[in-house]
Amino acid sequence: VARLHRRGASPAIPEGEDRLLLWLRRRLGESLIGDDAAVLPAGGPFAVTVDSQVEGIHYLPGLDPACVARRLLAVNLSDLAAMGASPVYGFLALTAPLDYDRRRFFRALLAGCARYRLRLAGGDLARSPSAACMATLTLVGRKRRSARWLRRSGAASGHSLWLGGTAGESAAGRLLIAAGARWERGRVTLPDGTATASGSVSLAAAARRAVRRHLCPQPQLELGSWLARQTAGAAMDVSDGLSRDLPRLCRESGVGACVEADCLPLAADFNALCAALGADALDLAIHGGEDYVLLFTLPAAIEVPARFACHRIGMITSQLRISITNAAPGGASTRDLPSGGWDHLAD
Amino acid sequence: VARLHRRGASPAIPEGEDRLLLWLRRRLGESLIGDDAAVLPAGGPFAVTVDSQVEGIHYLPGLDPACVARRLLAVNLSDLAAMGASPVYGFLALTAPLDYDRRRFFRALLAGCARYRLRLAGGDLARSPSAACMATLTLVGRKRRSARWLRRSGAASGHSLWLGGTAGESAAGRLLIAAGARWERGRVTLPDGTATASGSVSLAAAARRAVRRHLCPQPQLELGSWLARQTAGAAMDVSDGLSRDLPRLCRESGVGACVEADCLPLAADFNALCAALGADALDLAIHGGEDYVLLFTLPAAIEVPARFACHRIGMITSQLRISITNAAPGGASTRDLPSGGWDHLAD
Repeated sequence: VARLHRRGASPAIPEGEDRLLLWLRRRLGESLIGDDAAVLPAGGPFAVTVDSQVEGIHYLPGLDPACVARRLLAVNLSDLAAMGASPVYGFLALTAPLDYDRRRFFRALLAGCARYRLRLAGGDLARSPSAACMATLTLVGRKRRSARWLRRSGAASGHSLWLGGTAGESAAGRLLIAAGARWERGRVTLPDGTATASGSVSLAAAARRAVRRHLCPQPQLELGSWLARQTAGAAMDVSDGLSRDLPRLCRESGVGACVEADCLPLAADFNALCAALGADALDLAIHGGEDYVLLFTLPAAIEVPARFACHRIGMITSQLRISITNAAPGGASTRDLPSGGWDHLAD
Repeated sequence: VARLHRRGASPAIPEGEDRLLLWLRRRLGESLIGDDAAVLPAGGPFAVTVDSQVEGIHYLPGLDPACVARRLLAVNLSDLAAMGASPVYGFLALTAPLDYDRRRFFRALLAGCARYRLRLAGGDLARSPSAACMATLTLVGRKRRSARWLRRSGAASGHSLWLGGTAGESAAGRLLIAAGARWERGRVTLPDGTATASGSVSLAAAARRAVRRHLCPQPQLELGSWLARQTAGAAMDVSDGLSRDLPRLCRESGVGACVEADCLPLAADFNALCAALGADALDLAIHGGEDYVLLFTLPAAIEVPARFACHRIGMITSQLRISITNAAPGGASTRDLPSGGWDHLAD
């Protein structure tokens, strides 16, 4: 344990931490960094969310620090989008080995902050005792004056159930990465000799999109902001999979839901991609997770503008059951939505 | 990488995460937890701080989760104390191995939150890819209406320089822990056969106090609140050692400082304890760090009330040099304050 032995040992310890902080402050312009805590101006109410990205859990070891930073920011912004909030401030805790390229990480993070008009206002730097990097981001968001907060508890019987984009593509990307696909400086390479690399051009393109979708999800802040101006409805983001997140939304609202399997939106060439990966497309769409699209409900009369590319996937019921319906030649068959998805604390 | 392989694999994944969250929500009473982000009421301005405790870096592997939680809370509260802020909300990101006793951790954390009237309002749970536990706490604080924020930049030439308590005791505790001292359910055991265990009763008591001071520092929230009602002065907390933190305060204020070595407050029996540990008492006091007492400046005319047990340790100068003065038989000798202390990113 370095900290236990190193203090005061050397009269000329290199200024690693202070130098990095100075470098950072130059890039932040007029900065909130420099005191023991950042002072945020009065205002609010505020939405605060915290999310981590852990090497070896959320992504494979060796991922480009720039990609880690972008993903960390995106999954956190997705939480603010699910609240209908606009990002205002960010606080980063970064625990990484000594030789980690922190400046590359920060450059990408700051570029993302600029894009979303978010101010990095503080944080904490620590060394990792292992080779693994661990980053935790706290975001503070605000809502517009005329808007409401989106809550998981806002669903009511008769609401339509919507999904903000396709499901399962991120999970396919995860399978591709496990099989050897890599993201490097914006380019995706597919493992040689696999069906996705040697198959059709459109299959390879679908595979590349899936890897990108997995590593660089797009937070739906504009959709969240539109939803927050509607009169009713619940929302959350799909991070752990529809089969885990939909029950959470229903529990908070005291309702049930019926999902129409045929309405689940899938990415272009998704069935072919799943076939090449030996995966079941519906399974990935239901249990996959990390889609980072909004799952939301709206009174049946409200249509979502086409520009948001959302899909109605079912409806909210007063009966507490959560079911999934398949159209079949002999009539629709309905069963309980199988449980699954991602549990952060399960084996 | 478990996440890459496990999704949808089993139809009956145990509800580890959701069950822990339900358990937690029962204990939180009317809770802010349950949405993608916590909504904090309007107000402010707010002070926000983020700090981590990493097993193997900030403490030895195997430390009682209750002690980790208390320490995490204390070091973060110390940052709010340094701003003159009162804690309001906390957000926890906990990354730990599957068999980590999270409930023990949370029980201690919630007891601490209750003590300091702080509300746990959200967080994130993840599995650790290694045996190491990593906890990051974000705290939101508020200041009283009649008070100002304490800043590092508030020091002016002629101010007295003060320390909120003794220096170096925490570092002595760290040395004792490295030598085998342990904290278990509130009791400190000293390693058999060492000078501290076999020496005098008062030496053993000093050693136990040092271990406790290291593991369970006491944030100086009341002192911070008193300082925030004074008309002038800078403040910060000593976390990385006087030799590293005083230059930071001086840099932010554009001033220098002269420390009187003989005025540095030391714990009872500290010299004897250092002798038994083979350590230099002044070295520990200057470079030790993790004291979590406030380092602050005040106009020379202002005295700190005795109940805070603060010590005047020097003065702020317009000359940018940071020096330390020793009284000596032939007259005082002055030298540059040696650099040292803790750098989170140094070898």
